[in-house]
Amino acid sequence: MSISFHPETSSYLSTLPGRYYYDPALYEQELERIFSEMWVCVGRAEAFLATGSYQVVSVGRESVIVVRDREGMLRAFLNVCRHRGSRLCTQASGQLKGSIQCKYHAWTYGLDGRLIGAPNILSDEQFDRTAFGLIPVALEVWEGLIWLNLADNPAPIEAQINGPVIERFGSFEPFTRYTLSELRVGKTISYDIQANWKLVVENFEECYHCGPMHPELCRLLPGFRSGKTYVAGDAAVLAEDVEAFTITGKASRPPLHGLLPEDLRHYYGIVLRPNILLNLLDDHVVIHTLWPTGPTSCRVTCDWLFDPQAMALPDFDPMDAVEVFDIVNKQDWEVCELAQMGMSSKAYKSGGIYVPAERHIREFADFVLDRLGHTQSRE
Amino acid sequence: MSISFHPETSSYLSTLPGRYYYDPALYEQELERIFSEMWVCVGRAEAFLATGSYQVVSVGRESVIVVRDREGMLRAFLNVCRHRGSRLCTQASGQLKGSIQCKYHAWTYGLDGRLIGAPNILSDEQFDRTAFGLIPVALEVWEGLIWLNLADNPAPIEAQINGPVIERFGSFEPFTRYTLSELRVGKTISYDIQANWKLVVENFEECYHCGPMHPELCRLLPGFRSGKTYVAGDAAVLAEDVEAFTITGKASRPPLHGLLPEDLRHYYGIVLRPNILLNLLDDHVVIHTLWPTGPTSCRVTCDWLFDPQAMALPDFDPMDAVEVFDIVNKQDWEVCELAQMGMSSKAYKSGGIYVPAERHIREFADFVLDRLGHTQSRE
Amino acid sequence: MSISFHPETSSYLSTLPGRYYYDPALYEQELERIFSEMWVCVGRAEAFLATGSYQVVSVGRESVIVVRDREGMLRAFLNVCRHRGSRLCTQASGQLKGSIQCKYHAWTYGLDGRLIGAPNILSDEQFDRTAFGLIPVALEVWEGLIWLNLADNPAPIEAQINGPVIERFGSFEPFTRYTLSELRVGKTISYDIQANWKLVVENFEECYHCGPMHPELCRLLPGFRSGKTYVAGDAAVLAEDVEAFTITGKASRPPLHGLLPEDLRHYYGIVLRPNILLNLLDDHVVIHTLWPTGPTSCRVTCDWLFDPQAMALPDFDPMDAVEVFDIVNKQDWEVCELAQMGMSSKAYKSGGIYVPAERHIREFADFVLDRLGHTQSRE
Repeated sequence: MSISFHPETSSYLSTLPGRYYYDPALYEQELERIFSEMWVCVGRAEAFLATGSYQVVSVGRESVIVVRDREGMLRAFLNVCRHRGSRLCTQASGQLKGSIQCKYHAWTYGLDGRLIGAPNILSDEQFDRTAFGLIPVALEVWEGLIWLNLADNPAPIEAQINGPVIERFGSFEPFTRYTLSELRVGKTISYDIQANWKLVVENFEECYHCGPMHPELCRLLPGFRSGKTYVAGDAAVLAEDVEAFTITGKASRPPLHGLLPEDLRHYYGIVLRPNILLNLLDDHVVIHTLWPTGPTSCRVTCDWLFDPQAMALPDFDPMDAVEVFDIVNKQDWEVCELAQMGMSSKAYKSGGIYVPAERHIREFADFVLDRLGHTQSRE
Repeated sequence: MSISFHPETSSYLSTLPGRYYYDPALYEQELERIFSEMWVCVGRAEAFLATGSYQVVSVGRESVIVVRDREGMLRAFLNVCRHRGSRLCTQASGQLKGSIQCKYHAWTYGLDGRLIGAPNILSDEQFDRTAFGLIPVALEVWEGLIWLNLADNPAPIEAQINGPVIERFGSFEPFTRYTLSELRVGKTISYDIQANWKLVVENFEECYHCGPMHPELCRLLPGFRSGKTYVAGDAAVLAEDVEAFTITGKASRPPLHGLLPEDLRHYYGIVLRPNILLNLLDDHVVIHTLWPTGPTSCRVTCDWLFDPQAMALPDFDPMDAVEVFDIVNKQDWEVCELAQMGMSSKAYKSGGIYVPAERHIREFADFVLDRLGHTQSRE
Repeated sequence: MSISFHPETSSYLSTLPGRYYYDPALYEQELERIFSEMWVCVGRAEAFLATGSYQVVSVGRESVIVVRDREGMLRAFLNVCRHRGSRLCTQASGQLKGSIQCKYHAWTYGLDGRLIGAPNILSDEQFDRTAFGLIPVALEVWEGLIWLNLADNPAPIEAQINGPVIERFGSFEPFTRYTLSELRVGKTISYDIQANWKLVVENFEECYHCGPMHPELCRLLPGFRSGKTYVAGDAAVLAEDVEAFTITGKASRPPLHGLLPEDLRHYYGIVLRPNILLNLLDDHVVIHTLWPTGPTSCRVTCDWLFDPQAMALPDFDPMDAVEVFDIVNKQDWEVCELAQMGMSSKAYKSGGIYVPAERHIREFADFVLDRLGHTQSRE
């Protein structure tokens, strides 16, 4: 079972060993070092329209309330009463009437997290109410996306997210032409996948599987058939006989208003670690948000975003765009689940290999090893 | 996340750290040190009418047969054949015909546990049948309640149970007026709860939640609205416009025959550790029996007991009494389950706090720590 | 709870301690030391008729492809792509068209396991395709049964399997008269059992339970009522008023063609460790194949084999034979599941005992301890 080539001297790099995809202890490390110490994307900012509008999201092992406060700011708090630990909000989303009240003993918190009500004790001199506000979670809005960070002293978000965008385009400016913060969600589909979250990221990071797995996608973007990797400003280009990235190949929406002629007919894919896969088309954007749900399972929420002006038209129908990635998604999840099944085999004890077309995604494995402090275990 | 007050110098005591409510290793310690070394209540003695009448109950990790023997004594045995380990009785209750026979190889035991049949070998001189009787479990009947103790040399039961009663009433005598051993079960309801068993005990030990959670209960016992703690002979008293502790507020049964005029219109709640919650009313008694079923789940069996003379009347209907605590139970289990959800948050890593109205229930946390030998970990 | 007899000096030997029947760590050791280092039977060779005919079977923790290659040889490979670890074959059985192709990236392997296709890289000089063939699993066909061995350097199969046959008959020759490799499967039934696989083996190894548990079986083989053990050529003999081992007691098939008159009306049971239970009758053979599925569960596949000439007759009906062992099987699984329930009791912490009629099956416990390297823990 020893592997005869030497990854250090070859274009064929070894993948992470199989245990990284099923070991509960390694999964716990990832929840801690990646999903509890990095900025993690949890959704779109425009979903919070009014004061008191809230959502409950999962980050790492925590349930977190995201809410728009009285000043119009988005805030995030651990969804835990400071008294006896009860979960405060039990719905996925909703509208609060100016405060958050615990059902158990009626402790009440302002939308800014301050403890403003606690029967019998609020006037007690011995009780320091300022010590019992909701525990805040760092929150940033970046291009319309809400990012949370459970760390006590999080690093600036730009240090984490801007890099991949600049690397993909050469500079940040072309990306801004997609006006991500101005777009709106036209359709959302969630998928439960019986595979470790990293297999989903790795699947997105290479197109070596596009030829065998994605005939519909390759029909629209013929360059994907070669399995080549697009880097440094290189875009995948629509097939000549195709008008748009839709299941019919026909265009049914104008391009996003900020784009230049040189952006048209282009596709860009970008990974914003740890949990966002971004797909930029000339008339819509598709965002995959990954939620680890266990060592061998994850959930992906897929949002299709459009120009709000296009959405306002009476005949707006997102489905010709939605169908493409819905098909591609299901094809991808199937092979991610097949890959998961092999992770615990002795055949994968030392991992498999990345071929040259997958070579640059070795960086993702290195990112994981670095975050976990496992750099020595890299072969 | 550090907490700014000092529990030692405050009325605000910290609860147990969150891990005590979900960690499987701590749960195993509780099964061993609490549920396998203390007297644990498993039901009512009057359920065993005739010789051979039996029930199968769970104590700690063990299945136990409780059976009335030929001398009329109640006995308890591990529900395990001494030959190859088969479970002997598979029904929750039933009637044995003078012996307990294993289905696998027909080994047969008397109702006193002695091995009285074993095909081929009983006459073998090499075989010492006295070494292979059923393994007995210590059993005591206290006020009509059956208590088992899995320990090899259990302490006297009185040392464990009488204390809380005396503490509640000042002496044992007032409690005896409820003639608990003479009452009979009129209704039983079981509840499966997704919360650690200790959250259910703690919920019962404080009434700080009664105002927010229990409008029906506070309608009958208005003193509960204040959240105050009843101690040392203090009783909760029925509302002036209410006749009895029933959902209608009307009395439909005479008081229990042993009560004095001064006992009428009173409610007493008592915890008999580890697993009994006792509710004494003037015309019935409600007993909650807790069964841990996992680190984050338990079952509660709730029995409503009445005077057998009242039960013999043709129009006896327990439901006006049953409905009250059935409502209260469901309200309590809901918030116990909400509290469970917060136990694994980092917000509860060091626990929450007990306010002054909950202060005395800190004793329960201390009891748990003492039984587990964790007194050093107490903050 | 101490046991007063000394197994070393008695006919009453102790069984394995209870933890051997539920501890996940001990189960993992068994998967490794028994099911991954011994020859394990996975089915019948005649099921693979044509080139490319395949089955997917489980051995230890591995999924294995068994396939007939172009030379007509049966081969076995780990069901894992060498590139990124995907499971290759997802159906339980089927027909391959000359190669095995991975769905994910279209890597393709010959039926001999060689890598024969890998998009973009097969002609790359840096890529040594010979290092990335499917990982082979040792395979032997013995008397029509396929045996696999996951070990790198497996011992000869004869050293493992022939012994029990010779021990049972005194020599190998009588067994050959059953012409096992020429028989064909007429009926298969699978059973899922909530008991550790060893309880199923131990159940088969003794007939002390036959009297209490198997009236139908004892009607056909009255000697089983005594619970005695058949060894060294001793056969169980059909009841005088019975023609055949069928639910009706009537004969409906001629004897297997290779048998001698002295073989007629005989039953032989043999265990081929680790996972085959063999039942030889004069007109059919019943094979139980055990598949551990967890510490406290297993699956048994039961095959009824007949002479192909008998099966070719227009009125062939296997059910009069099938019904007997189907009844016996269900009776056995019930008591195996009862025994499983007692394994975790403190009553079984040091195990139970084998009576003299079960004495020789202590060898099976010793076999397990030897394989796990636990000989010191034997009491």
